[in-house]
Amino acid sequence: MTAATAPSDIALPPLANDRFLRACLRLPTDCTPVWLMRQAGRYLPEYRATRDKAGSFMGLATNPELACEVTLQPLDRYALDAAILFSDILTVPDAMGLGLSFATGEGPRFAHPVRDEAAVEKLAVPDMDKLRYVFDAVSTIRKALSDDQGVGRVPLIGFSGSPWTLACYMVEGAGSDDYRLVKTMMYQRPDLMHRILQVNADAVARYLNTQIEAGAQAVMVFDSWGGVLADGAFQQFSLAYTKRVLSQLRKTHEGLRIPHIVFTKGGGIWLDEIADSGCDVVGLDWTMNLGKARAMVGDRVALQGNLDPNVLFAQPDQVCAEVIKTLDSFGKPGPHTGHVFNLGHGISQFTPAENVSVLVDTVHTYSRQQRGG
Amino acid sequence: MTAATAPSDIALPPLANDRFLRACLRLPTDCTPVWLMRQAGRYLPEYRATRDKAGSFMGLATNPELACEVTLQPLDRYALDAAILFSDILTVPDAMGLGLSFATGEGPRFAHPVRDEAAVEKLAVPDMDKLRYVFDAVSTIRKALSDDQGVGRVPLIGFSGSPWTLACYMVEGAGSDDYRLVKTMMYQRPDLMHRILQVNADAVARYLNTQIEAGAQAVMVFDSWGGVLADGAFQQFSLAYTKRVLSQLRKTHEGLRIPHIVFTKGGGIWLDEIADSGCDVVGLDWTMNLGKARAMVGDRVALQGNLDPNVLFAQPDQVCAEVIKTLDSFGKPGPHTGHVFNLGHGISQFTPAENVSVLVDTVHTYSRQQRGG
Repeated sequence: MTAATAPSDIALPPLANDRFLRACLRLPTDCTPVWLMRQAGRYLPEYRATRDKAGSFMGLATNPELACEVTLQPLDRYALDAAILFSDILTVPDAMGLGLSFATGEGPRFAHPVRDEAAVEKLAVPDMDKLRYVFDAVSTIRKALSDDQGVGRVPLIGFSGSPWTLACYMVEGAGSDDYRLVKTMMYQRPDLMHRILQVNADAVARYLNTQIEAGAQAVMVFDSWGGVLADGAFQQFSLAYTKRVLSQLRKTHEGLRIPHIVFTKGGGIWLDEIADSGCDVVGLDWTMNLGKARAMVGDRVALQGNLDPNVLFAQPDQVCAEVIKTLDSFGKPGPHTGHVFNLGHGISQFTPAENVSVLVDTVHTYSRQQRGG
Repeated sequence: MTAATAPSDIALPPLANDRFLRACLRLPTDCTPVWLMRQAGRYLPEYRATRDKAGSFMGLATNPELACEVTLQPLDRYALDAAILFSDILTVPDAMGLGLSFATGEGPRFAHPVRDEAAVEKLAVPDMDKLRYVFDAVSTIRKALSDDQGVGRVPLIGFSGSPWTLACYMVEGAGSDDYRLVKTMMYQRPDLMHRILQVNADAVARYLNTQIEAGAQAVMVFDSWGGVLADGAFQQFSLAYTKRVLSQLRKTHEGLRIPHIVFTKGGGIWLDEIADSGCDVVGLDWTMNLGKARAMVGDRVALQGNLDPNVLFAQPDQVCAEVIKTLDSFGKPGPHTGHVFNLGHGISQFTPAENVSVLVDTVHTYSRQQRGG
């Protein structure tokens, strides 16, 4: 897909389309790659059909064949430049024994939240065998993405929740408006919170490394709740443990480079520090100006984002105009910069599926023009 | 309370304690003033008793005598440097005929949300007589704060929701997780959204000016949902209309200077632009580093904030340490800078009331030491 080859010190896997990996590593691309957070999801009728077949969200996530099926669905509809493993961010605490469930129409819930010293003491990095269904899904998807010669259609992204984001759910037991329980523990018993975060960081690192060994060609850490922390607390209780994950992650697998992406919702205010975390790519939500972000990070990291998912509720020509605004805000990628187009958050279940085509096609067409191609 | 007198061009009202107004106007103070968003609220047993007497939240808000009673309650318990009118941010759309109600245990709800062109057409700046209960509460509170010589105990702050924040509730009809309806209108029919925001801005300006005429000695615009907007959209749909309000507000009343405060939750990322909006004080939530904020705004505006309300769930010595961290982050106020201590959001209903004493007393004691006093 791209004419230039990678520098000799960066080996990439054989792929029909390696734009996404190249942009992550700030190598030149013919146009801007695009994928969407939660691209395999409820806005697609074919997803809803597979989910009904599975019986439930967890039934779907724990069945490697069906997880593979829904992972590939959006690739068949749209010219997306990456696949992302279909799974949930809370699989790791579930494997720790906290009992994850999803009530219909509600968010995730843990049967055994971690609220006292005794519960914290019992936490440990889970046996990766309990997460076998995830690694099996990764290798199943990789196989399905490969042609007869072993050339992949697009790369596969693996992921996990960040240590802090997992801790939020583990302590609260569910989603929260005010994060009162987890922050009470953090301010009142920082020793317990640090203990949870250490276990989480080591578990997430092992989990992502095992995904990489199973075939994930890039990995992403979702710090969905980092943005609820105060300045100071963010650095100490979220970013420090994201760094602890990153420092343990495989940078290569079988000689091939594995990009690491960190996405902190509401983290634009701390972009400068996140760019120094050791990751290759920083994901941004829609509140951050991409041009300012690019100027700030320079050639330290590539950027991923950041269209407001609600733009997809507008008319096609308006979607097109907003996509162009985002591409113009980043500007023409120069040497040693990289932009991966994405939403600033997961795509809404209410999104009209036809608007996703407009988005994807506009990203490719307009960014090719930007490069003068 | 403060030794220095105001420059001759800034006239302040006769007050036993004018620290808050002085800090808003970046004049020297003996120590840092403090008040708390939602300081008259459910965490106080005496508030709950008065509310039970009123029968409901709206019963309380629409009864000037009872609204006065709860406004003064926190001042009797704590050495707070300002009173804030007890009211709701959604009184203006209620007066427009949208039918505000509060179901028990839930947030606000409008019986007649604004979702189509016909509903938008009907919107108009409401007759201020429909908001008489608010202005009566303001004058009742001012009277209750004054001694026999007409000297006020502390200044009284009036407030309103911002045009955008009101629009969120008016279109959604209630609180929202994703702001899908209001953003759909914004992206799909920007003409309708601009029309709503114009009416809101003019209504909010008239509402705040009438509060000022009734006795409010400072006014605050709560842009509680500005932070959900994308960069670009924030400037166009929130900040532009906050500026439209500010440009119409009385800067003085009966020769006395009335400071204007703007608080955008999640607005730290746009601080530089908000500081140029024409307000005197910018409120910050806890994600923003106060020292960096001070360096950025220079002598353009004073800053208000920004402790995480969840700190109040820690032990008293921990509350004390976090308050000191916040004061140290701002640093010793120099000439032409001002800091009003506050939380970064409303105080939680679950807050232990005794921790508020620790917060208020630590702000005064430590900030007096900071000044070498």
